[in-house]
This record gives sequence, C-alpha cells and structure tokens, in this order.
Amino acid sequence: MSLLVVGSVALDTVETPFGNATEALGGSALFFACAACRLHPVQVVGVVGDDYPFAQLEKLAGNGIDLSGVEKVKGESFRWKGKYSYDLQSRETLETRLGVFADFQPRIPPNFRNAEWVFLGNIDPELQLSVLDQIKKPKLVACDTMNYWINGKRDVLLQLLRHIDVLMVNDSEARELSGDWNVYRAARWIMDRGPKRVVIKQGVYGAVLTEGKSVFYVPAFPLESVFDPTGAGDSFAGGFMAYLAKAGDASPANLKRAMVFGATMGSFAVEDFSINRLASLSLDEVSSRARAFRDLVHVDVEPETVGRQAR
Amino acid sequence: MSLLVVGSVALDTVETPFGNATEALGGSALFFACAACRLHPVQVVGVVGDDYPFAQLEKLAGNGIDLSGVEKVKGESFRWKGKYSYDLQSRETLETRLGVFADFQPRIPPNFRNAEWVFLGNIDPELQLSVLDQIKKPKLVACDTMNYWINGKRDVLLQLLRHIDVLMVNDSEARELSGDWNVYRAARWIMDRGPKRVVIKQGVYGAVLTEGKSVFYVPAFPLESVFDPTGAGDSFAGGFMAYLAKAGDASPANLKRAMVFGATMGSFAVEDFSINRLASLSLDEVSSRARAFRDLVHVDVEPETVGRQAR
Repeated sequence: MSLLVVGSVALDTVETPFGNATEALGGSALFFACAACRLHPVQVVGVVGDDYPFAQLEKLAGNGIDLSGVEKVKGESFRWKGKYSYDLQSRETLETRLGVFADFQPRIPPNFRNAEWVFLGNIDPELQLSVLDQIKKPKLVACDTMNYWINGKRDVLLQLLRHIDVLMVNDSEARELSGDWNVYRAARWIMDRGPKRVVIKQGVYGAVLTEGKSVFYVPAFPLESVFDPTGAGDSFAGGFMAYLAKAGDASPANLKRAMVFGATMGSFAVEDFSINRLASLSLDEVSSRARAFRDLVHVDVEPETVGRQAR
Repeated sequence: MSLLVVGSVALDTVETPFGNATEALGGSALFFACAACRLHPVQVVGVVGDDYPFAQLEKLAGNGIDLSGVEKVKGESFRWKGKYSYDLQSRETLETRLGVFADFQPRIPPNFRNAEWVFLGNIDPELQLSVLDQIKKPKLVACDTMNYWINGKRDVLLQLLRHIDVLMVNDSEARELSGDWNVYRAARWIMDRGPKRVVIKQGVYGAVLTEGKSVFYVPAFPLESVFDPTGAGDSFAGGFMAYLAKAGDASPANLKRAMVFGATMGSFAVEDFSINRLASLSLDEVSSRARAFRDLVHVDVEPETVGRQAR
C-alpha cells in the first residue's frame, strides 16, 4: 500500500506579521511528506541542488519518509521568498529562483513504481503526465495544480485530468479552470472532464469534497493563532492521501475521514513556520485533533419532530 | 414561548447578475419573520409609511406572522437600493431613503411584552436597548448590528452587549468590533463583554457558534445557483431563533440544531429575490434540507485505530 509524492523540495524564506523564516525546508513534496508520515510511510520524488541542507533532510528519513527518490544535482536549490498580508489572507511572491528545479524531470526509482497511492504535487502538467507513465498500476492518483499551469498549459492539464482520480485545488484555481465562480458548479465542470472526485480547498474556511452529486464539507480547525499558511494545502493533501493509503481503499466513508485528516494536518502546518510543527507532532496530537472535528460539526437534527409539531 | 423580532420593514430594489427586483418586500424584521414562521409563530415590531404595499404584507399574516406591532405612519417607507457584484460577494448601496424609519421608536404592544425569545434586528443600539426595557422577562435575547453602529455608537453598543445573550454578526462586523482579524479571538473578545454566545456569519462559507471554549461550525448549504443574497443573515437569524423558541430551551444541543435551521433558512432566502422563496416554502422542504446538513458534514472518525496501526 505504498504512498508516493512527486513535487518540489525547496528553501522558503517567509515573512508573516508574526515573524519570519529564512531558507527553511519547504516545497510541496516536503510538506506533503511531513504531514503524511504521521499516518503512513511515504516515498518522495524531487530534486535539490548541492547547496541543500542535507543534514536537516536526512533527519526526516527517520519518520517514515523515504528520500531515495530525491535527486541531488549540481546547482542551486529551488528558492521561494514571500511575504504575507497582515491577515495572512494574501501573499506576495518576492522572489522565485527555480535553480535545479527548472530542469526537473521526475524519474521514479524502480522500487517506487508499484506505488498505489500517488500524489502529483504542483508541477508542470507534462511532468505530472510523465510520472503517471512510470507508475505501474496506481490505485488512486490525486493531483494539484496552479493558475500558472491553468493558463499556460491548459490543453495538457485537460489531458491530465482524464488520467487522475482526484483533483485537489483551491477555490481560485477551481474557478479559473472552470470559468465558473460557483465552486459546486466548478467541481461538476471538473468531474465532467475526468476525475471522479474534486477537493476544493478554501483556506480558513475549510474544504469541500465532491463525488458525483454528493458534497462533503470539512471546516478548517478553529485556531486562535496562525503563524505561517505556507504549505497548508500540501499538508492537507498529505493527511488526506496518507489516510487513504492506510485505510487501503477510497470508499466514500474513507474519503470523508481522509478529509478530516487532511484538515487536521493542514491546521498543524500553519501553527509554525516551515515543517516545524509537523515534524514535532505526536500521534496522540493528531488523533485528538481529528476527534475534535467531530464536536465541531456533529449535530443531531430531528427535523421530523419539527415537522410534526410546527404551528 | 413567544418569539419577537424588532427591525426594519423595507422596500428593496436589488440588482444582481441574474436579474432584479423593484420595491420588493424586505428589511431585517420581514426576512426574519418569513424564515421564522416556518417553525414557530412570530411577532413583528417595525414601522412602515403609508405608501407600503399593505396587501402583500397582509398575506404574510396567514403564515403565523403577527404584524400588529408594525406601525403605519404618514410618510415614505424605508427604501434600499443595491447592486451586487458578478460573484455576489460584494454589493454597492445605490440609495438609502430612511423615510419614516428615521424616526422609528419601537413601541412593543402590551401583548408582545411577555416575549421569551427576542431578536433585535440591526437598528440603532439605543433603540435596541429601549426594546429590552419594554420586554418583561426574556429567556434569550439575540442581537444583530452593523459597522455603522460599531463605529458611530460604540459605547452604547458595548452597553447593550452586557444585556444580551447572543450577538449574531458577520465576520467583518466581528472583526471591526473587536479589532481582531481572527474570528475566534474576536468571538472571545465579544463574549468577555457580555453575551455568553456569539454567532459569526461567514456568507457562502457558513457560520460559527462559540460558547465558552466550544466552537460549532455549520457550513452554508451547497447551492449551484444563488439569485439574491439580500436578507440571508436575517433569515438565518429567523431560523435560528424560531428553532430555539420551538424547542423551548437554549441547551448546547439545541443551539447546534438552531444553527442548522438558521443555515437552512438562509440558504432558501438566497434562492430567489425578496422573500419569494421563503414565502413559498413547505415544511417538508425545510425538514429535508435540514436533514441534508447531516450528510454534508457527518463523518465517523476513529482516530484510535489510526493511532494503533500507524507506522
């Protein structure tokens, strides 16, 4: 029941109203892996330059993260520098230096090709397709993307949609892809083009899962302090996919639980800079927060009673 | 177990990307009443001018809405004219003519003064206080307000907070009142100043109820078509308060159910202009949508299992 992620491994320099981090571990694959490994071992495919802080990376290996698919090549690692607004609701990219990531050609190691649960982090959809060509028989493929590819490589992206099971995007991406502002219509538009399920992430408001006509909603965990939203979406994906990999099948009930574990890991990710909070998490903390989601939304509605007694 | 609302009774002229309504029934008290009456009889206190379309108003009386507290005075009725953005997420007020509403001094008829469940719609906090002076022994008082009063009559509003049980505002109002962007900290700030519970409405994302340290979240009902968001918040309040009035007590479990019925009525309100959808609602439709909220969020998380088996 192996779980594979392909994506970026980066060095993030982040400024928020609450502090900053300089050249800290980041990237979609790393956030995904650090969230996923709390529930299930995870294999990572990515690339770093020879300036990457390997010692920090190696420490993660002990947590069930297999980094043997992360190529180390000559050159600069991928660096991203961003600054968040006072309310953390928007961010400005100050600098993007792709470095060795510019020539990234994902090569899936032979022992990773049996992966059953595959997450394609936000990279060029052509590369995402090339990953799928290398995986033998995935059980479920989920995929992220971004506005840059939606605009720049729309045809390839639409082709990719026909080969994946879950598209996992944020609301602005869903809107841009579908041309529809309403997220439920946008999800239907996407499902009409391939993936049987769509997950639309809505930041502090939570996330929506659609499958056919059914809709499932998980709120974001109520946090009084958020330090750094970077990586929240990839951490969500990590919790989501790791739960499915652990459960072993993507039944509707398991998909709902996966949403809760996704929201759980996303909520931890934002409590500190970089992967710091995720890296220090205990299983008890994960279980206890996942349980707390139940109290957050569960209600016994007995509308029949209302019907009988009203007026 | 009588239920009372005090607020505006207006004529709304609304333009949305999907159509428009001209001088249609509106106002906080009217939306509240049209939503509430599906679950529980409701008494309305407000004022209209002699140009109000009384015939339309009278029709509502058959639905359990007692309009004997709506004063008819010489002059123009309150008129509001607004235009919504393409995504319905923002609106521009084109015209506000207060008319007879400018001199509104709520007079609670003697037979309304025993009201146990009271909603103070969005009017001058001085008037909201004067309403409370006229109510004998309310069981629960909920109250709305807006940025105009938060800025212009802050001291009176803070005084009012000490006398109410639930403040029901949208997220921008909660932020402006507390000076805190984080809605959970904002809610705590408000609870520290009087009301034991706070409901923060978040539009298409749903609503949050806080009581002490507990947080309950109800999403907005997933709608593929929204026609006119006007009155959604007051309809939410109507469903919320009517459920409590019907249930007879504001236990934590009933408050959660009230949130679901609030979200249910809010979701119906936006499906048509003015009070049109609310006015045509059957109890079956209400029950069935309230039930649908269960499927929207319920999940069986068994994190213990995850804990035992992980890695």
